[in-house]
Amino acid sequence: MFELIAEEAGARRGRLMTAHGPVDTPAFMPVGTQATVKALSPDEVRALGAQVLLGNSYHLALRPGADRIARLGGLHRFMAWDGAILTDSGGFQVFSLDHLVSVSEEGATFRSHLDGSQQRFTPESVMQIQRDLGSDIAMAFDQPIGWPAATGPAEEAMHRTHGWAERCLATEPAAGQLRFGIVQGGFDDDLRRQSAETLAHLSFDGFGVGGLSLGEPKALTYRLLSLQTAILPRQRPRYLMGVGTPADLIEAIAHGIDMFDCVLPTRIARNGSILTQGGRINLRNRRFIEDQGPPDEGCDCYTCQRFTRAYLRHLFMAGEILGHRLASLHNLRMLVRLVEQVRSAIGSGTLAGALSSLREQWSVAPLP
Amino acid sequence: MFELIAEEAGARRGRLMTAHGPVDTPAFMPVGTQATVKALSPDEVRALGAQVLLGNSYHLALRPGADRIARLGGLHRFMAWDGAILTDSGGFQVFSLDHLVSVSEEGATFRSHLDGSQQRFTPESVMQIQRDLGSDIAMAFDQPIGWPAATGPAEEAMHRTHGWAERCLATEPAAGQLRFGIVQGGFDDDLRRQSAETLAHLSFDGFGVGGLSLGEPKALTYRLLSLQTAILPRQRPRYLMGVGTPADLIEAIAHGIDMFDCVLPTRIARNGSILTQGGRINLRNRRFIEDQGPPDEGCDCYTCQRFTRAYLRHLFMAGEILGHRLASLHNLRMLVRLVEQVRSAIGSGTLAGALSSLREQWSVAPLP
Repeated sequence: MFELIAEEAGARRGRLMTAHGPVDTPAFMPVGTQATVKALSPDEVRALGAQVLLGNSYHLALRPGADRIARLGGLHRFMAWDGAILTDSGGFQVFSLDHLVSVSEEGATFRSHLDGSQQRFTPESVMQIQRDLGSDIAMAFDQPIGWPAATGPAEEAMHRTHGWAERCLATEPAAGQLRFGIVQGGFDDDLRRQSAETLAHLSFDGFGVGGLSLGEPKALTYRLLSLQTAILPRQRPRYLMGVGTPADLIEAIAHGIDMFDCVLPTRIARNGSILTQGGRINLRNRRFIEDQGPPDEGCDCYTCQRFTRAYLRHLFMAGEILGHRLASLHNLRMLVRLVEQVRSAIGSGTLAGALSSLREQWSVAPLP
Repeated sequence: MFELIAEEAGARRGRLMTAHGPVDTPAFMPVGTQATVKALSPDEVRALGAQVLLGNSYHLALRPGADRIARLGGLHRFMAWDGAILTDSGGFQVFSLDHLVSVSEEGATFRSHLDGSQQRFTPESVMQIQRDLGSDIAMAFDQPIGWPAATGPAEEAMHRTHGWAERCLATEPAAGQLRFGIVQGGFDDDLRRQSAETLAHLSFDGFGVGGLSLGEPKALTYRLLSLQTAILPRQRPRYLMGVGTPADLIEAIAHGIDMFDCVLPTRIARNGSILTQGGRINLRNRRFIEDQGPPDEGCDCYTCQRFTRAYLRHLFMAGEILGHRLASLHNLRMLVRLVEQVRSAIGSGTLAGALSSLREQWSVAPLP
């Protein structure tokens, strides 16, 4: 199911087989929260090199409804995407909401952000949602805890997450559906180790590292991450949830992470920001008003092949949707390509050089 | 320059040669007001069968500036569209604005809708704008007059339009640029005839029919149109400006019109409305919530080939840009295909049957 092809200096190259094709790792997953990668068609997402998308159980369960998507043939057919889909469990959304009503061993009660209606997620209901969606990879229901977290609440949330993980595994998956557990433990070394050890003994097909990159210092993020990747089974994929920037991707791959997702590339695109090899720029800046160069020199995406910075600036100043589209497409391609570049170096003996050159390109100071 | 290939019962099939390729007529021109057909890439517009786009002198002169577009290589290069472009003269925008300050024989003074700055358009400045844009077809500067118009003001606007037409012709066009005059005359038979006769004697490459479809009864629109097409030179293309619905296109082609533009397909798409062979529908309607059919059965567009009504409804309910894109693409394809269908019938002896079947399909009562 997961083939580990090469390892070098802590980084891993692999291939995850799913019911909807292979996913070469390290992999970046574009986020399709509401059954669409914002502003892009599935063919564009495929053309920019993505093999797997992230779908969102919380959002899809509320609208249009997971049972409805099941009646319409499942999420792949609904959104016309024939590649792999990983669905998150909604844990992050439910516990980040201002609308959380209560949490108990049984599950979490919250109010819908759409209509205020009271809703309840349990490990069983969340796995049912993901079975209805028919995703290739279902995430277990978890309770993340924000930064800074005291040890008491972090420990409580961790134990709850472990209990929920076992209940998730006791449900029936969709045909061919893989299941990933999620390690938690707040920002405490011992709890993080304990969570990784507990999860490692369960029969998950892979592991998400949750509750990191929530505002804590980067050095802490990567220390906690290292503690956990040292414990998690070597033969299973590891997914650092909700991360991140180019710098984050480079460092996390060096720390043994195989999969990523983040809304950053499409979210910043909406405001005219694009990732370039010289750093992040905002295309609304007046200095681009007659700039005939491509958005990013050397990028192979459709946007950079066809349009100038001056034109993209105009689209953003005029409030045209095409600007949002073209910037989203470029930003996603940048992250997919970054991951492809590191991937091809792993196992070739050139990883150190590649990482060093990418760190320089993306202005990343190496972390301990 | 314009080859009249076939005529049948008042309808005409032809081919207009431009510096950016041929335009088969009757032709529907998608509107690219601000150097983009709203929500679509130039490749999508090309793929749906459009050979010519409409650009907007008023909007482009104010933002980003026609001189700037000239420095950036012209409008084709700026927006990465290698097909033909027709630019309107801004007459319609200037005289529809609440911001019109004054009008004289010399030109029109108005305030920018963007920043309130005072601006002045003259026949000469408008032709300079279109020379800077490098469009394939430039429209003369005109003064339309709204419905209902008294004969006095309509006559005054018509005479002004005629004087401006001669001044437009006295300017130097861009290399290979064709120039179309615009007939006016309000809603008066005699004025409409007089305007067509006056314009017909000027050396324009084609003619726009302006100031119609502004709220007057349809029967009046087509009576005035017929009066003018009977007078305009048979060997030059005729363009009915700002029209229209499928019904309008069918009737106007039957009345000898060769070219059209309208914002309707992209404007209604924004609200979830699509044109179908069974009439206009709004995809937000609850009855489509689990409708697995394509948006329009039998349509060959990307949207209809790939997605269901249920999915499009979801995109609109969730406020996703992809919904806007897919509906715009479909609506434009519907009008381009409608025009293709009529075009292929003209001269084949099957026009009457084709028009009758299209009128039925689009629920159009034939007009006198």
